[in-house]
Amino acid sequence: MELTPLNPPNVPITHHHLLDLNAWTADEIHTVFNTADEMAQILQRRVRKAPALQGFTVCSLFFENSTRTSMSFERAAKALSADVLSFRAKSSSLSKGESLKDTLRTIEAYQADLYIVRHRASGVPYQLTRWTDACIVNAGDGRRAHPTQALLDAFTFRNTFPNFDGFAGKKLTIVGDLMHSRVARSNIRLWSKLGAEVTLCGPRSLCPASLADTPNVSLTHNLAEAVEGAHAVMAVRIQHERMQNSLFPSLAEYQARYQVTPEIMKQAHPDALVMHPGPMNRDVEISGALADCERSVIEQQVANGVPVRMAVLYTLLVGGRQKAAM
Amino acid sequence: MELTPLNPPNVPITHHHLLDLNAWTADEIHTVFNTADEMAQILQRRVRKAPALQGFTVCSLFFENSTRTSMSFERAAKALSADVLSFRAKSSSLSKGESLKDTLRTIEAYQADLYIVRHRASGVPYQLTRWTDACIVNAGDGRRAHPTQALLDAFTFRNTFPNFDGFAGKKLTIVGDLMHSRVARSNIRLWSKLGAEVTLCGPRSLCPASLADTPNVSLTHNLAEAVEGAHAVMAVRIQHERMQNSLFPSLAEYQARYQVTPEIMKQAHPDALVMHPGPMNRDVEISGALADCERSVIEQQVANGVPVRMAVLYTLLVGGRQKAAM
Amino acid sequence: MELTPLNPPNVPITHHHLLDLNAWTADEIHTVFNTADEMAQILQRRVRKAPALQGFTVCSLFFENSTRTSMSFERAAKALSADVLSFRAKSSSLSKGESLKDTLRTIEAYQADLYIVRHRASGVPYQLTRWTDACIVNAGDGRRAHPTQALLDAFTFRNTFPNFDGFAGKKLTIVGDLMHSRVARSNIRLWSKLGAEVTLCGPRSLCPASLADTPNVSLTHNLAEAVEGAHAVMAVRIQHERMQNSLFPSLAEYQARYQVTPEIMKQAHPDALVMHPGPMNRDVEISGALADCERSVIEQQVANGVPVRMAVLYTLLVGGRQKAAM
Repeated sequence: MELTPLNPPNVPITHHHLLDLNAWTADEIHTVFNTADEMAQILQRRVRKAPALQGFTVCSLFFENSTRTSMSFERAAKALSADVLSFRAKSSSLSKGESLKDTLRTIEAYQADLYIVRHRASGVPYQLTRWTDACIVNAGDGRRAHPTQALLDAFTFRNTFPNFDGFAGKKLTIVGDLMHSRVARSNIRLWSKLGAEVTLCGPRSLCPASLADTPNVSLTHNLAEAVEGAHAVMAVRIQHERMQNSLFPSLAEYQARYQVTPEIMKQAHPDALVMHPGPMNRDVEISGALADCERSVIEQQVANGVPVRMAVLYTLLVGGRQKAAM
Repeated sequence: MELTPLNPPNVPITHHHLLDLNAWTADEIHTVFNTADEMAQILQRRVRKAPALQGFTVCSLFFENSTRTSMSFERAAKALSADVLSFRAKSSSLSKGESLKDTLRTIEAYQADLYIVRHRASGVPYQLTRWTDACIVNAGDGRRAHPTQALLDAFTFRNTFPNFDGFAGKKLTIVGDLMHSRVARSNIRLWSKLGAEVTLCGPRSLCPASLADTPNVSLTHNLAEAVEGAHAVMAVRIQHERMQNSLFPSLAEYQARYQVTPEIMKQAHPDALVMHPGPMNRDVEISGALADCERSVIEQQVANGVPVRMAVLYTLLVGGRQKAAM
Repeated sequence: MELTPLNPPNVPITHHHLLDLNAWTADEIHTVFNTADEMAQILQRRVRKAPALQGFTVCSLFFENSTRTSMSFERAAKALSADVLSFRAKSSSLSKGESLKDTLRTIEAYQADLYIVRHRASGVPYQLTRWTDACIVNAGDGRRAHPTQALLDAFTFRNTFPNFDGFAGKKLTIVGDLMHSRVARSNIRLWSKLGAEVTLCGPRSLCPASLADTPNVSLTHNLAEAVEGAHAVMAVRIQHERMQNSLFPSLAEYQARYQVTPEIMKQAHPDALVMHPGPMNRDVEISGALADCERSVIEQQVANGVPVRMAVLYTLLVGGRQKAAM
């Protein structure tokens, strides 16, 4: 494994949960990235599997549908030889009128070692920490946080930006429906913590000023200005169903003013990367041609989902204890 | 493992199926409870898993939705290192007009060692025993039986009633929609077999006299009388959809006359436990405050689902043979 | 393992995919059959599992529902100790407007070693070979091909026809909705490649002449003529929803002219076998009595699904390399 010399050395991590990135230090995050490098190497082997989590049970609790995220976690857990249970809310007792508390109490009875939780209400993963001793990983709660997505986005930038020399001095621009996006919120938090500047951009109705009330984060409604000098431009999904909302510009207006295109990328840093956390609406928030061009690292983002999630599962379940014991 | 001195010693068990509890003797049931104690200990270890069923394949066939039961079985099977296949009827050929017999013949072709079957029609698990050599566990058929739920309910009472000295002389009261409840039927059968008295209670339309036609089982429509001196009071789910039936009292009437409350529990034995097989309608068949109070063992019931099901799987697949060979 | 003396010896197989049977030679197919014989023996053991694919990850991608086929593959993979991921399209991002290409790129990121693909559009499995280095198995694409079904059908004939002495000189008759049937297309291709004659039969609207444009394949709309001297008669599913199409005869007409019955089987070879790839509409395309009679091998077809799919997974993932290295 080659580390860039600017990578801080590994630190012991004793977190029991990954609810959001608030409590995680930059050093801890760099340590997760280093672990993810090792996990990526396991996935390069002929037998892409390691026994690190043998005997552990990981349970995914998806109260919202998300095949891509749940399967990425499931693959990550199995690649480390953990057992996996999958709970899908649709067929659950929730539809029989059982309260969330009673459902979670039932789930706790499965006695898993780690729960991966996605829910449309912010704070559900946090709630669950009060009802179980198991580790909790937030796989997306409401508009609040989606920390593993942000980790894999930043990890992808770290491993693909030419001559990467650290996040300090780098500029990330995020464009799209930021108001409803937990991915945007987690990326804002993560990149600014790592020392980068973050510029937010989108129509007024989807990009409220309150998102930029932290140091190193700014906001503009002008795309050219936002992209100016950026080292990474990340387009975020526009949800068609929101188009019908009168506050929102029409689809044609949005495309004309905010679509990330090869043309607008000329304003960015010459080495700038194009990113998208998926699923993409080609030719809505991002031009299809740009998504497939050389500077696009969208495929790498997707590919990094498994090793980054392997690193998170490993760190919470055994990594911390072992490293603390070293 | 600490056994109460009144626990009978283990006996060899040669049952190949668990369709209901009719053919199981009290001694065999105590042996399953002793095995469940051992399974609970496995679940207390840091690595909550044992290799006992390695190489066996367990297939769950849920023709009715039930996440809580199917996941409990799935966790139990994986905790003993079995492979698990999950069949959900909704996406099956049944919807293409295939007969149940042909579907079950297809399923038999998966060559699992044990099938866990839930179906809305009574007798389907029994039918399956005629078409396969594999073990069958009934996970609920129609209104007839749900034996693992009754086992975990009685197991919970045995392990939590203060100074438990056997089921003889104990009184269990079951309150609610008993007519439609396979859980009630299996508990009636099990507790009376173990030597306890069972009193049934509920509105006439939901609690027919025919349920009490066995020795040690009585019935009353008066809640105070039913609870008098009881060592355990179990509330059973009222299904909202049945409220619309004209034979049924209104929701308000039901709550007034049959809800299990702290007040009514004063009629019970001073150490009486509050039970509910779940999923609960808080403040319908049971008061929410009572469900959360100290004498409630509802959480323990849920938690005992996995070890009791581990004991059942183990007993059917290898326990009997090993013990018979001893 | 007993091989009939006419079985050709095993040949090395270096195919990386099973998209259809076009590129597979008769010798390669006989080798798969021999491997399936060995797999069937594993499934006869007390512990019906082998470690042959330990460390490999198999991912099933079913864009069309098919519990019977997906579970058969899943059981096959687990019987060889592979890890299994299951992707069901209904809950996927496809419903959020993501393109098939982007979805498949996401799936490729799970880094499985082999993907099992079913899709209503012909050619999707082939498409996927261009976007991944993993092995691809076609589990049914449009009306085009369903190669593992054809393999298990022919394997069943080979192992159950009395005194089987090879496919040469044998006659297979396929009756039913052949136009929409990928199973029929794959069986036509496979049996004619193995040296058998294939006769197709059905109403004009469901049995177009173009299906018979290959050597050894003929077509007739007269059932008695079609069955004359046949060594195997395979009925293929009629889809009720097509009955409403005006081009199609009525259900009663179909039954009268094309249902495979004990009566019509008198025209066939005295040892002729009755086959159906399932799921069956009893008393539509096949008489229920015939399906259950002694000469019916429908149950064996179903039972052979697991060992034949084990043979395919094993052959693609490791069999070829090992044999090539011998």
